[in-house]
Amino acid sequence: MVDVSDKQETKRTAVAFSQVQMPREVLDQIEQGKVKKGDVLAVAQVAGVMAAKNTPQWIPMCHPLPLTGIDIRFEPVREGKQAVIKIYAEVKTTGKTGVEMEALTAAQAAALTIYDMCKALDKGMVIGPTYLLKKTGGKSGDFKREER
Amino acid sequence: MVDVSDKQETKRTAVAFSQVQMPREVLDQIEQGKVKKGDVLAVAQVAGVMAAKNTPQWIPMCHPLPLTGIDIRFEPVREGKQAVIKIYAEVKTTGKTGVEMEALTAAQAAALTIYDMCKALDKGMVIGPTYLLKKTGGKSGDFKREER
Amino acid sequence: MVDVSDKQETKRTAVAFSQVQMPREVLDQIEQGKVKKGDVLAVAQVAGVMAAKNTPQWIPMCHPLPLTGIDIRFEPVREGKQAVIKIYAEVKTTGKTGVEMEALTAAQAAALTIYDMCKALDKGMVIGPTYLLKKTGGKSGDFKREER
Amino acid sequence: MVDVSDKQETKRTAVAFSQVQMPREVLDQIEQGKVKKGDVLAVAQVAGVMAAKNTPQWIPMCHPLPLTGIDIRFEPVREGKQAVIKIYAEVKTTGKTGVEMEALTAAQAAALTIYDMCKALDKGMVIGPTYLLKKTGGKSGDFKREER
Amino acid sequence: MVDVSDKQETKRTAVAFSQVQMPREVLDQIEQGKVKKGDVLAVAQVAGVMAAKNTPQWIPMCHPLPLTGIDIRFEPVREGKQAVIKIYAEVKTTGKTGVEMEALTAAQAAALTIYDMCKALDKGMVIGPTYLLKKTGGKSGDFKREER
Amino acid sequence: MVDVSDKQETKRTAVAFSQVQMPREVLDQIEQGKVKKGDVLAVAQVAGVMAAKNTPQWIPMCHPLPLTGIDIRFEPVREGKQAVIKIYAEVKTTGKTGVEMEALTAAQAAALTIYDMCKALDKGMVIGPTYLLKKTGGKSGDFKREER
Repeated sequence: MVDVSDKQETKRTAVAFSQVQMPREVLDQIEQGKVKKGDVLAVAQVAGVMAAKNTPQWIPMCHPLPLTGIDIRFEPVREGKQAVIKIYAEVKTTGKTGVEMEALTAAQAAALTIYDMCKALDKGMVIGPTYLLKKTGGKSGDFKREER
Repeated sequence: MVDVSDKQETKRTAVAFSQVQMPREVLDQIEQGKVKKGDVLAVAQVAGVMAAKNTPQWIPMCHPLPLTGIDIRFEPVREGKQAVIKIYAEVKTTGKTGVEMEALTAAQAAALTIYDMCKALDKGMVIGPTYLLKKTGGKSGDFKREER
Repeated sequence: MVDVSDKQETKRTAVAFSQVQMPREVLDQIEQGKVKKGDVLAVAQVAGVMAAKNTPQWIPMCHPLPLTGIDIRFEPVREGKQAVIKIYAEVKTTGKTGVEMEALTAAQAAALTIYDMCKALDKGMVIGPTYLLKKTGGKSGDFKREER
Repeated sequence: MVDVSDKQETKRTAVAFSQVQMPREVLDQIEQGKVKKGDVLAVAQVAGVMAAKNTPQWIPMCHPLPLTGIDIRFEPVREGKQAVIKIYAEVKTTGKTGVEMEALTAAQAAALTIYDMCKALDKGMVIGPTYLLKKTGGKSGDFKREER
Repeated sequence: MVDVSDKQETKRTAVAFSQVQMPREVLDQIEQGKVKKGDVLAVAQVAGVMAAKNTPQWIPMCHPLPLTGIDIRFEPVREGKQAVIKIYAEVKTTGKTGVEMEALTAAQAAALTIYDMCKALDKGMVIGPTYLLKKTGGKSGDFKREER
Repeated sequence: MVDVSDKQETKRTAVAFSQVQMPREVLDQIEQGKVKKGDVLAVAQVAGVMAAKNTPQWIPMCHPLPLTGIDIRFEPVREGKQAVIKIYAEVKTTGKTGVEMEALTAAQAAALTIYDMCKALDKGMVIGPTYLLKKTGGKSGDFKREER
């Protein structure tokens, strides 16, 4: 694990994006509370928060950090017969390294949980693309994903 | 968590796919062992195996299962200035529920670890799409993703 | 940890009870979705399920068991200016030891989570009494708590 | 998870209370070291300490904090044919949020462990009531439970 | 992780040995209950039991197994001004792979815990040698360490 | 857990040593990449890093610390028909307590992982001796193991 002993503690934030693509009917059932396994987005949010806190357990070379804020938001979008749940995970800390991995891990865990809770309806759902939207703080400076 | 008490224990397998898209130079550095954080694919493989075993910790409504086999393979592909590392995660068990989530979680953890170890080179890498390739065993029958 | 190697694997269930006593206004805010930290009962349910699965981590001499079902239910009751959220946690497995501890741990984690999410409103809330309501399966026979 | 990024780091303490009610004979066996599963209070103390450190794993919306002190004390009391083991859990940190949940979680884990180690003697034991006795530090000020 | 899907489930046991070498005065203080951090051997025993259960978390390529018995024993020996605490960890399961790693991990965790609790008295204590004493069950047959 | 609330946060480092003794042929197979379970030293390194981060989970009375650097190095030595892999684990933090336990735990986890991955070749391998080589920082001053 890279030595960050001499880095400054600064305020850091990161926002990651992921999404789950699914048939429109699956989103309908999620929003109508008909999914047998429970309240999909509430459980996915908890999963994202827990995963952010556990990131150094998932990602071997990731430094432990005392996270000060985690926010997971979902944005469902319908497109014809298809639908997508967009996932935004924002993480904050004051620490010696950034929280990009925490944000990405939170987004992935939320996406996996949505898949898990709906897989009895459709096993063909697709997760991602998943990427970093932006980060602030730290010596390497801010990052903002360009529109492509 | 859904009650599976009366389900049969059967042999089950699942294969999931994910990938990390990156600039060609990043893949070059991975393969030449120049990434400062260590041997990227070796660490990502361990991360995938650990994540498969920990799936019920990451995914709240996922049943604990005594996994009997986990295999993570990487397939690097170059396309012009871009490159992609394809990730195949195969998981096996004998149990009352399937191992789709274990395979997907392993693939995601491996992808996140690749991102983590290379993010000093490029923060714009993209993870996914991530999806289930196939599963066997269990009452709901086999699943095989159709070519699209 | 007691040696259960020679015990039979049998179907086992356990139901535990706990509760959180709170001012009526706190329950009102929970039910109206006004608690700032999120959907209290949804999060508490996830906490209970996760805790049941993690019981051998919290309780040192508790055997690991592949749980096959976990169900957490809440029953809010108003009594004058006071209110109480009753918590019922039911756990199932097929294993060599019982799931009393898993049910009790799930109930406690759900209760603690309710406290956590509402403590900005009232730090004087009381958890418990917490006890085993019933268990079935295993050599020591069934147990059912007598009305007192 | 609520954003505490802009909160001050201050010294914080919390003391929680729980108890286990049991037949007098069970307490006798605990104190005489006759319980087959081991030294009940020593194991319960370790369980409480470990649980305090793991609180953000139990309680989804709880912030991770670097705890600086954890103290678990037991006070056995006999009342006729009944007995009770009172549990006091004190936790300290220097951090942005309080340690009420860590103290309550420690007390609960110690109580559950006592139950676990003695349940072969009596499954009717009752845990709780469990509550916060006092806290110090932080913007919301000190809290001290009033005698009732 | 090696594929053991087609292996038979058989009864398996393993016994591992480790030890902590220390000045005689440290052992005296342990036995007289004077170590400030608590009851050294009671805590070390819990640490060993917990570690055995968590072995697949510590050892990446180790299969998860439902352990049915864990026993940690300590044997203090004085030799002139020196002393040693011998540690025997026995683990049992019925499973597809052996429990050598669980026994070794339990012994190591108990040894590390003894070191931790006494390091204020002497930082020069030595752990080990640590090795497998014997195993039974499984296709590869029994193993018994030869006297050397 | 001992109260360190009033201790200063200082920079701290610790280096621990362990080793695995094995037949020369086992080391040959490790270095030639012929061990069926995978790249032994790469996996052992990850295990060591993860274990250092998880030390407060292994060692009950150990304080949680935000580690800033972990470095695991291996040094293979051949001696006639025998061989030994020497393991050096260095850990850094800025905190209120030292990182001796983190360094020792990392070394032990790396050693156990080497054993695990090679035990199909030889179950008689010996781990240790394991000890602290040096530490710096903290009120109790620096420590350096004397040659013996």
